[in-house]
Amino acid sequence: MSIPTPIKWENDNLIILDQQQLPHEIVYITLETIEDVFDAIVTLKVRGAPAIGIAAAYGLALAAKKHDGRLLESFHLRLHEDYLYLAGSRPTAVNLFWALDRLMNKVEAVESVLEAIALLEKEAVAIHEEDEKTCEQIGNYALSLLNDKTRVMTICNAGTIATAKYGTALAPFHIGAEKGKKFEVYACETRPVLQGSRLTVWELQQSDVDVTLITDSMAAHTIQAKGVEAIIVGADRIAENGDTANKIGTLNLAILAKEYGIPFYVAAPTTTFDLTIESGKGIPIEERKAEEITTIAGQSVAPEGTKVFNPAFDVTPSALITAIITEKGIVNQADYINIKSLVGRQAGEEVEA
Amino acid sequence: MSIPTPIKWENDNLIILDQQQLPHEIVYITLETIEDVFDAIVTLKVRGAPAIGIAAAYGLALAAKKHDGRLLESFHLRLHEDYLYLAGSRPTAVNLFWALDRLMNKVEAVESVLEAIALLEKEAVAIHEEDEKTCEQIGNYALSLLNDKTRVMTICNAGTIATAKYGTALAPFHIGAEKGKKFEVYACETRPVLQGSRLTVWELQQSDVDVTLITDSMAAHTIQAKGVEAIIVGADRIAENGDTANKIGTLNLAILAKEYGIPFYVAAPTTTFDLTIESGKGIPIEERKAEEITTIAGQSVAPEGTKVFNPAFDVTPSALITAIITEKGIVNQADYINIKSLVGRQAGEEVEA
Repeated sequence: MSIPTPIKWENDNLIILDQQQLPHEIVYITLETIEDVFDAIVTLKVRGAPAIGIAAAYGLALAAKKHDGRLLESFHLRLHEDYLYLAGSRPTAVNLFWALDRLMNKVEAVESVLEAIALLEKEAVAIHEEDEKTCEQIGNYALSLLNDKTRVMTICNAGTIATAKYGTALAPFHIGAEKGKKFEVYACETRPVLQGSRLTVWELQQSDVDVTLITDSMAAHTIQAKGVEAIIVGADRIAENGDTANKIGTLNLAILAKEYGIPFYVAAPTTTFDLTIESGKGIPIEERKAEEITTIAGQSVAPEGTKVFNPAFDVTPSALITAIITEKGIVNQADYINIKSLVGRQAGEEVEA
Repeated sequence: MSIPTPIKWENDNLIILDQQQLPHEIVYITLETIEDVFDAIVTLKVRGAPAIGIAAAYGLALAAKKHDGRLLESFHLRLHEDYLYLAGSRPTAVNLFWALDRLMNKVEAVESVLEAIALLEKEAVAIHEEDEKTCEQIGNYALSLLNDKTRVMTICNAGTIATAKYGTALAPFHIGAEKGKKFEVYACETRPVLQGSRLTVWELQQSDVDVTLITDSMAAHTIQAKGVEAIIVGADRIAENGDTANKIGTLNLAILAKEYGIPFYVAAPTTTFDLTIESGKGIPIEERKAEEITTIAGQSVAPEGTKVFNPAFDVTPSALITAIITEKGIVNQADYINIKSLVGRQAGEEVEA
């Protein structure tokens, strides 16, 4: 088996792993039109912020080819329509806009339609390759921190299938497997949406990583009983002071790490930092519908009309985070005050002394 | 609405709430024979250690009536067969043996079959009434601790439907509702078996208690976001030093209570103490089958052959337990050293100064 990749660009074809069919069916589908790409994003066949950005970029490149033969002005009008169409597929996905804008900027001053078509494809490929490089760098930095450890816990799916390749929090396990490092990973199932059992377990199995599934409620007992040595998670948004919003349940794990004296790591690209937000207090927490908790796999598990509190994320205060691992280096807790300068730094420049 | 009771003895009939049909159907069924009682225990129509003990006691009393008219020696032989039959319904349930033995001891020296039949019924009723009294005392002690608090979290179902009436950890909410005290209870769903969403939410709704369902992973965020002021849980077994085995996920909550500086209470009858065990290290932790985690409501949510760790209980060290609430009084942390003397005390005798 080998590490799965969610997106491939082969002979001008966009091929994606249909994540809706995981973990029971492993199906790659070819997306030939912009409508196919729009549909794949809307129906969560492709998920994870970086993966959505990459798929959308290829979607715009595919659409552009259909306008070959038009006058340049007409081409620009059509491309703008395509841009708006794709942008509407997941209106809250920041990476989607970021990727589409990056393509649109490239073709602002082109001199021909053919030049534009070539540039769009080139830029989509660049976004794809850069994300893989970013994840690989995060994975190598994380691996350096986890090198002397074997048993590590994680939550949700900050994995290869949410990115170009490797993922963020799961990158050290995939890269470790490539290098012959044996980890024992404990994956929390991640209620309510079960990304842990449905996705993380599956993708680590593909890389032959020894992965054990537990419910979120078993974390404390498992840390003790199995001698878990570290916890690593992804991030949805990181404030200027290092406070980190991530999947609900992350904060529980950070507090357990403190109780048991084991390190708690956040792995995320520097694009996850939102320097307009000073601390976690400024991060809004989305609340989702009650049915995610009161029904499972379509079956009701609670009385009719049950009152539910269903926050999608929680915020882990930076004081509970041992280090934040980015593609530009590892930021230890004492250095969170320098996060601003890190985000502006070039990848590869070390942050640590 | 009003507090549900799982077991009723009316006109020589045993009537039980069918817990397998909760929370969607509220069905009371009449058990007329010892076979009916055996079946109800095996199929989890009646669950919860005290409730199982009570049902089994009535089951033996029902069986005895069928032997009316026999010679005393023959009656004793038949009764012993019935005893063995019922004891086999749930071989790990300590309360089951305790209740059946109590009935058998009562009739050892009877002089007639009619006397035995009368004594068996009387003893079953006594066990039933004592359990209700025990729960009521636990509830009143718990209420005295929670009197100045509104928002309280719990896990699993240490509730009225697991006992004669009121339950243990849920007793203060039911009794509080009777007395006009308004609690806001946050019920953890309690993966993997979902006793929280299926049972606790339902039974608190019946007493008009304001109850909100969360996933276990939401506990830390909920404590912060909703200002939870205390956590109260039941217990499966308590060691001599106060270490407490309870449903998996309890230890997570105890650690969160410490982090947020709120009290963490265990509510349980003194029969839960196992003075043959010095500390939590001596409590064996049952591991259950993988399917409880990999399938939900009959549907698979993880890849085929997923490796699973599924401990049914965890052990909360006594250092994390603010107080243990029993029918004989409240034991504060500093007094755990005196647990032995508490267990031997009469109910109503105060432990605290």
